[in-house]
Amino acid sequence: MRLAYDGGPFVGWQRQAQGRSVQGLLEEALARIEGAPVAVVGAGRTDAGVHATGQVASARFRHRLDVASLRRALNATLPAAIRVLDVEDVPAAFHARFNATAKVYRYVIANGESINPFDAAYAWRLSGPLDLDAMAQAARRFVGSHDFAAFLAAGSSVTLTRRTVTRSVVGRLDLASARADGLPPGTACADLDGAARITYEIAADGFLRHMVRTIVGTLVEAGQGRREPASIEAILESRDRGAAGPTAPAHGLCLVRVEYGQGREIP
Amino acid sequence: MRLAYDGGPFVGWQRQAQGRSVQGLLEEALARIEGAPVAVVGAGRTDAGVHATGQVASARFRHRLDVASLRRALNATLPAAIRVLDVEDVPAAFHARFNATAKVYRYVIANGESINPFDAAYAWRLSGPLDLDAMAQAARRFVGSHDFAAFLAAGSSVTLTRRTVTRSVVGRLDLASARADGLPPGTACADLDGAARITYEIAADGFLRHMVRTIVGTLVEAGQGRREPASIEAILESRDRGAAGPTAPAHGLCLVRVEYGQGREIP
Repeated sequence: MRLAYDGGPFVGWQRQAQGRSVQGLLEEALARIEGAPVAVVGAGRTDAGVHATGQVASARFRHRLDVASLRRALNATLPAAIRVLDVEDVPAAFHARFNATAKVYRYVIANGESINPFDAAYAWRLSGPLDLDAMAQAARRFVGSHDFAAFLAAGSSVTLTRRTVTRSVVGRLDLASARADGLPPGTACADLDGAARITYEIAADGFLRHMVRTIVGTLVEAGQGRREPASIEAILESRDRGAAGPTAPAHGLCLVRVEYGQGREIP
Repeated sequence: MRLAYDGGPFVGWQRQAQGRSVQGLLEEALARIEGAPVAVVGAGRTDAGVHATGQVASARFRHRLDVASLRRALNATLPAAIRVLDVEDVPAAFHARFNATAKVYRYVIANGESINPFDAAYAWRLSGPLDLDAMAQAARRFVGSHDFAAFLAAGSSVTLTRRTVTRSVVGRLDLASARADGLPPGTACADLDGAARITYEIAADGFLRHMVRTIVGTLVEAGQGRREPASIEAILESRDRGAAGPTAPAHGLCLVRVEYGQGREIP
């Protein structure tokens, strides 16, 4: 299943003891259709407040519906903040997380005094000047295979912290050349509020908890002139969370795409 | 003041005995800055749930702040769902409603099975085929000076029901040629959900209560083949609300622009 969701109303992807999670609601919707419990695996375990336009989830069950009917049935049951975009039958061995070869996240910063009400829930508003060149230079230094321990959420018990970043790009969203495939959340009405939209896109074979948000917090410090772009190497080498910047807010982040195989998205 | 707001959380523009209105919140914010009650006049009295990207409001008070500081102070006080985009000093005689020469509304229909979570609050989702040519033909028949009594909300006590429509156009939103000035709410992530976005834009010297929404409900009936485009004249002549179509939902509608003088927007 390919999914889009607004992260605002949820405690995150993962089922929790308390609160509404995307995974939990999807499992409930599938269980209602199936008449039996169904476990759902997500490619990316997005945090509370993080959005998705291209999350992928897999589940194994004996449904008798064709994929189009299954999608309709799921969308009829799920809250409007979660939509199933596509459903595909996959080989029984397919696992949305283990088989993912790359995930792409996008972060949107609205750089200006105010932000219009239609974009506010999907972009981090930052006033004051940001040096885009410095941010872009810092961003490039994340490309490659690195130990990202310094960018892992404090208190995490994860020990395998090496990840390979294949793309790490800061850009200014140019509405005039808005891409043919639509604009991301956080940029729909960017013409209204005079705030420049700065986007950060990162692709990697995997991500640690808070990794993208901590990278964004660190890039913003570079943009504010409080950190040299060249310092990124030292932060990575330190493996010290305290050496990196603050964790950027969740609501600016969006899981854009999950890839399987050689750059291929899920078939 | 030029304003954008998400109509979802509010009881509409107009102050009510109960509930949060855009006008009421703006008056409260101004009163807090001014230290005295301030009355605010809006160009369009948008219904509960109707959005605005270009509402205009006027108020008379002796503020000592420059317009940029006033805008900042208002945005610091108002909820994020309401943003003041611009503030201008105007002649004392200026009245946002009485001086408006035209208002432009846009309605967005998402024609498809499902709609992504980012656009769902800003577009009316309709499944089943819609004949765009029939809708466009019907829309053209509203241009001109007509008695719109048949398109007035039932129970309204308004008696002057003649209005002059200068533009009434149905179109399919073409994301590939997305305009340089951004996309309207309801279309940000139209690439996700496979639903075609049909837009209706209408400009007139004034609007009756529910007029745009009743026109949209009628156009949709034409698009569904349940009404001939040529029947619009007879509906207008009937002056009978029962002759027109249903009132389309509020959340697809947006007040886009208010014009003052010869096609000029507020100076």
